[in-house]
Amino acid sequence: MNILKERILKEGKVLPGDIIKVDGFMNHRVDIKLMRELAKDIAAHFSGREITKVMTVEASGIPMATITADELGVPLVFAKKAKSDNIEGGLICSEIHSYTYNKKVTLMVSAEWLHPEDKILIVDDFMANGEAIRGLTEIVEKAGAELVGIGIAIEKGFQGGGDRLRARGIDVYSLAVIEHAEPGNIVFRN
Amino acid sequence: MNILKERILKEGKVLPGDIIKVDGFMNHRVDIKLMRELAKDIAAHFSGREITKVMTVEASGIPMATITADELGVPLVFAKKAKSDNIEGGLICSEIHSYTYNKKVTLMVSAEWLHPEDKILIVDDFMANGEAIRGLTEIVEKAGAELVGIGIAIEKGFQGGGDRLRARGIDVYSLAVIEHAEPGNIVFRN
Repeated sequence: MNILKERILKEGKVLPGDIIKVDGFMNHRVDIKLMRELAKDIAAHFSGREITKVMTVEASGIPMATITADELGVPLVFAKKAKSDNIEGGLICSEIHSYTYNKKVTLMVSAEWLHPEDKILIVDDFMANGEAIRGLTEIVEKAGAELVGIGIAIEKGFQGGGDRLRARGIDVYSLAVIEHAEPGNIVFRN
Repeated sequence: MNILKERILKEGKVLPGDIIKVDGFMNHRVDIKLMRELAKDIAAHFSGREITKVMTVEASGIPMATITADELGVPLVFAKKAKSDNIEGGLICSEIHSYTYNKKVTLMVSAEWLHPEDKILIVDDFMANGEAIRGLTEIVEKAGAELVGIGIAIEKGFQGGGDRLRARGIDVYSLAVIEHAEPGNIVFRN
């Protein structure tokens, strides 16, 4: 069992609505040393593949994506979720449904920072229904860039998002796939 | 002249509304190697001071804060900006005015991840009016923790936020303080 699964079993909490709370080490207080271990694991999985940029979406995936980009020695691009005055000009967008906030959200990346010659590794802390990640893959496609693969810390396997992406032939590498979660009983996919 | 000022002069753009656009290396596409240099500089400034956590606020400050936490070997805590279903229980909050979005925003940190024995270094990519940073200092105070200081990449000196915090006796260390900005003419404080 890897270090992430151990931490989930030790410190994770299951809340109503299939929420798996890991905010003590993953997405509120962030254990940077753990992020380094996860990044090394993701980098090892995709070793031998050329990667020019790591891509994620704000906000909670940024720490792990940052350390993964550091590990790979490439820049990070993070998609933004709402129109800010500080983004001008050509945007590549994808509309997704946010299950966290139960509304439509538009992800966007400036066309300045994503090019046809880019080879993109998408990294995020969580994947459930996979809508955010689907949106990122759409942005990569619209940019004409190559999607090398997807590295995820925690995948909620029972919500199907990861398997839908795998069915499209995408290399989705998740460090912990949770198949079943109730208080006191978290079961991982083998 | 340090490496950050050189990048600002080379790649930064001044937009109407005193916006200094550095999204090619700082807050959309992120040059992680530059973040490492900035983090080393901040860590050197605060060397000899005990720091138990780096703190920032989502979203654009997270990459630099992540690398600074990595450099210091401590965890990161990032304040959240809106109530999410994934945060439960006791929250420490501060209401600020967001000039970017021209509305009130509540910053919050779970009381689980900020303790009276913590010695906090606040890190962010930008400081203008300093409202976000003021909110973070208020959260540190409410938690009864110690504020060691504040490390900022780019301070818009002409908007006064940094100097108001310095007047309170806080060690605010900014790597580039911009005193004047118009297209083609960015002037730094000495």
